Amino acid sequence: MTMTMDRPHGPVERHDVERQVRALQRRYASAVDGKRLDEWLSLFAAECSYVVITRENVERGLPLALVFDDSSDRIHDRVVYIEEVWKGHINDYRQRHLLSDPEIVADDDGIRIRQGFAVYISEPSVAGSRLLTTGEYEDEVAFVDGEPRFREKRVILDADVLPRYFVYPL
Amino acid sequence: MTMTMDRPHGPVERHDVERQVRALQRRYASAVDGKRLDEWLSLFAAECSYVVITRENVERGLPLALVFDDSSDRIHDRVVYIEEVWKGHINDYRQRHLLSDPEIVADDDGIRIRQGFAVYISEPSVAGSRLLTTGEYEDEVAFVDGEPRFREKRVILDADVLPRYFVYPL
Amino acid sequence: MTMTMDRPHGPVERHDVERQVRALQRRYASAVDGKRLDEWLSLFAAECSYVVITRENVERGLPLALVFDDSSDRIHDRVVYIEEVWKGHINDYRQRHLLSDPEIVADDDGIRIRQGFAVYISEPSVAGSRLLTTGEYEDEVAFVDGEPRFREKRVILDADVLPRYFVYPL
Repeated sequence: MTMTMDRPHGPVERHDVERQVRALQRRYASAVDGKRLDEWLSLFAAECSYVVITRENVERGLPLALVFDDSSDRIHDRVVYIEEVWKGHINDYRQRHLLSDPEIVADDDGIRIRQGFAVYISEPSVAGSRLLTTGEYEDEVAFVDGEPRFREKRVILDADVLPRYFVYPL
Repeated sequence: MTMTMDRPHGPVERHDVERQVRALQRRYASAVDGKRLDEWLSLFAAECSYVVITRENVERGLPLALVFDDSSDRIHDRVVYIEEVWKGHINDYRQRHLLSDPEIVADDDGIRIRQGFAVYISEPSVAGSRLLTTGEYEDEVAFVDGEPRFREKRVILDADVLPRYFVYPL
Repeated sequence: MTMTMDRPHGPVERHDVERQVRALQRRYASAVDGKRLDEWLSLFAAECSYVVITRENVERGLPLALVFDDSSDRIHDRVVYIEEVWKGHINDYRQRHLLSDPEIVADDDGIRIRQGFAVYISEPSVAGSRLLTTGEYEDEVAFVDGEPRFREKRVILDADVLPRYFVYPL
């Protein structure tokens, strides 16, 4: 794992980091919405975590999370569960992410991102699409062989409870 | 019709294409949300198509589409229908597009775009706004006299059925 | 208050203005969604206004607005109301903005922005999040000591009536 950035950053370099962060988040959203979970996995660094937690619990300092995959192995297991264990036993749906502009802080320790999002779902037996959740990403990204990868993907949900269970990564 | 792009593209040129694509999609959304359908028409190339189809039908390889305007004439006809035939006979509404970041592939054949979207509507007799649909654009753009224009606007809906009929272009 | 822009603008300068406008709107959304209202205040110029009005009233030329804070003092008062008077007496909620790409016109008089938005809310006793409103910003921005600030923040709602009262700035 190599960090390719050093302080201070000029405007051109900053623009380039922003472009790469946007592309990473777009690929992330495209991979999970398209249910291409191997591609999703490929966006994480070797040491990584994927967490889904409510804003309420973050603010109260409660560690209770809906998802707490604190290693690459657990994130791999999640894909196996989705694709092999749960498949055929769940009410399936399509997913659609919309993201807001990212707020990016880049320094020697890496790149930290805050970015709002909304996820909509479409279910086979229901007319129209509906909102599954809104929230904010608080991510940490590192450059691995020149490519940005998630060291931490932290999905913070605005609501305390979602209107239905979710299957695919948010 | 002139293609102003040749492979390979440097980062500056790529940035410029992205800026123009974003501006085109923003104008598209602004024109349809503002019901300025002549402006909407002006964003298409001479040879063009406008298609609305469900993801379900795309995946199954079914050609059945909600809208299949496969020529400039048909797209013009659509505007006449909306502005002269349907007007006063439909339950009208306002429309609001939100778009995700575009994924752009530019080569000698033109520019292909994939871009997620959500469309909300507001109806006179209903409190608040609601989601009409989410989906993805799979568009093809060419440069005509230096300006980007749609050769194909392909609107792929996430849901199989929408919660109400739609009148304005998506 | 200093205007740092002169016509004509080259592409680099234009890119820089767009970047600053995006950052301003992102900070605005982050401040109101995070209920950091002092930060929200700090994004306005000394002479400023904050208006929330329905599209219907704009189109009919009716001056009736949901919010009409036509001076910095009134905007300050709003914060006092939200943080000291209403607090504990309202049904509270979390807010989440998503913004579309801005349309920016910059000339000697300043910078004018049109930008679509959606605001979602999450309420403690309700499962999931829901749409509060969609609409469009029609803002005017000036550079104050080199930083972009709102001279006018004009929030135009697509719906005539919202599904519930709103407390925090839109």
